Amino acid sequence: MMRVWQNGRIIEPDEAHVSIADRGLLLGDGLFETMAVHNAQVFDLDAHLERLTSGLGVLGFVQAVDLPKLRSAIARYIAAEEASSAVLRVTVTRGAGPRGLAPPEAPHPAIFMTLSPMPAVRKIPLSLHIATVTRRNEYSALSRIKALPYLDNLLALAEARGQSADDALMLNTRGTIACATVANVFVIREGRLETPPVCDGALPGTMRALVLCLAKQAGLAAVENSLHVKDLAEADEVILTNSISRVMEARDCNGLPLGRRAGAAVERLRALIASRFDAE
Amino acid sequence: MMRVWQNGRIIEPDEAHVSIADRGLLLGDGLFETMAVHNAQVFDLDAHLERLTSGLGVLGFVQAVDLPKLRSAIARYIAAEEASSAVLRVTVTRGAGPRGLAPPEAPHPAIFMTLSPMPAVRKIPLSLHIATVTRRNEYSALSRIKALPYLDNLLALAEARGQSADDALMLNTRGTIACATVANVFVIREGRLETPPVCDGALPGTMRALVLCLAKQAGLAAVENSLHVKDLAEADEVILTNSISRVMEARDCNGLPLGRRAGAAVERLRALIASRFDAE
Repeated sequence: MMRVWQNGRIIEPDEAHVSIADRGLLLGDGLFETMAVHNAQVFDLDAHLERLTSGLGVLGFVQAVDLPKLRSAIARYIAAEEASSAVLRVTVTRGAGPRGLAPPEAPHPAIFMTLSPMPAVRKIPLSLHIATVTRRNEYSALSRIKALPYLDNLLALAEARGQSADDALMLNTRGTIACATVANVFVIREGRLETPPVCDGALPGTMRALVLCLAKQAGLAAVENSLHVKDLAEADEVILTNSISRVMEARDCNGLPLGRRAGAAVERLRALIASRFDAE
Repeated sequence: MMRVWQNGRIIEPDEAHVSIADRGLLLGDGLFETMAVHNAQVFDLDAHLERLTSGLGVLGFVQAVDLPKLRSAIARYIAAEEASSAVLRVTVTRGAGPRGLAPPEAPHPAIFMTLSPMPAVRKIPLSLHIATVTRRNEYSALSRIKALPYLDNLLALAEARGQSADDALMLNTRGTIACATVANVFVIREGRLETPPVCDGALPGTMRALVLCLAKQAGLAAVENSLHVKDLAEADEVILTNSISRVMEARDCNGLPLGRRAGAAVERLRALIASRFDAE
């Protein structure tokens, strides 16, 4: 494991810890971003920092985090660790506070970063399972920011793995599709690339935004609309996206095979994304 | 601040910390219990440990936590700190794990406990505000266990405080009342004591269970049924309960005064609870 950046210092992993009074630990009171480091640069860093800023605004402590300083710390950390291709996670919590929910007036956020090896590209399409243990809460402002609590997603993933699936699809409380546990969901059909809108409980993923932006170049019309489970069966292809795995195809859902008829469009999307990575 | 119990040792608060690889910190992957220490004993300890066990079952690592050992550690910790009246919080996380949602096969949970001063009894009835920033997700198994993620409740509280209210009422996704941010909700009307069922998103609170059990002795018929916002206006009294504050009355909600006509029944409930505390 590479060293850890914490509050301005680069230290060994076993020296990196937070107080047990930290509100991120006690209440999930914090945010994170997971980013791809490619050619020693963070891909789409602006988009990640923008989402982090938006999350800090929702949680009400944006003024306590020096974002320009964080941006230069990211660059120095990657350089110090000589990370060429890696996964960077930045975690920001509200820091320590007294007992109870009410936050301290002047928070001292805890900030730390880790670098992990970039996982190998997955070649085998994913087997999906529709989670029943939980649903995505589209009524919560948290569904639109990347907050620390991922326990619902974790339960959904555990359920899927128990059914020998690779990942879970999470429905929202109205029963339409919101996302997978760490990815956005798209269906390709009749030349359209469709994905649930953020108000359906989809996290505004950075790769989701890039895919929507590149769709036209890949020959697809990008549309944000609610997706129903029955839309999966009708799709030419179902794809999942996130900032690390980029574009993954799904092969079945709850045991029913999914269409694999948009391969060329998917490959065009992948190539367009790859050229963005190489251009940055 | 009193000393902290962590993994079998009683240490100074500034020595108590967890690894930044802890999944409780990174993902909200853990549970907690907040308990009243009265006459140097934990009130309703069995009920709290039962809920913790149920939560560990949902999260799938109950076999990794030695609950009889935890029970004796609680007793030794309270004795060592000579805590007569205090708030005890027990936190259990799944411990450290590799990057990503999938949990380690053999988790090593992190367990720590804190004792804090018992807050003074609140005499002034609460002013409530119905949260709009989020709703309680009654579709999630997490709504029925005391999991670490409390960020939705924290957003609801911040919204309420911004409206000069003391606490927020949280609706579920169907729009009926689920709970307050750290309390269960009851209405008293026509001799009945009504509270939302757990399937409406109400946490199965230990004080909720005790109040339901004591209702008859207080001259009230206990009923679990869905509560609508309009039911508040019709109530003789609206009360909130939790294990620390026990029974609190509400005086208004979204600026509209609430009935204060069940004072005698509320006082009987309070007296019955107090005698249970003294008897343990």
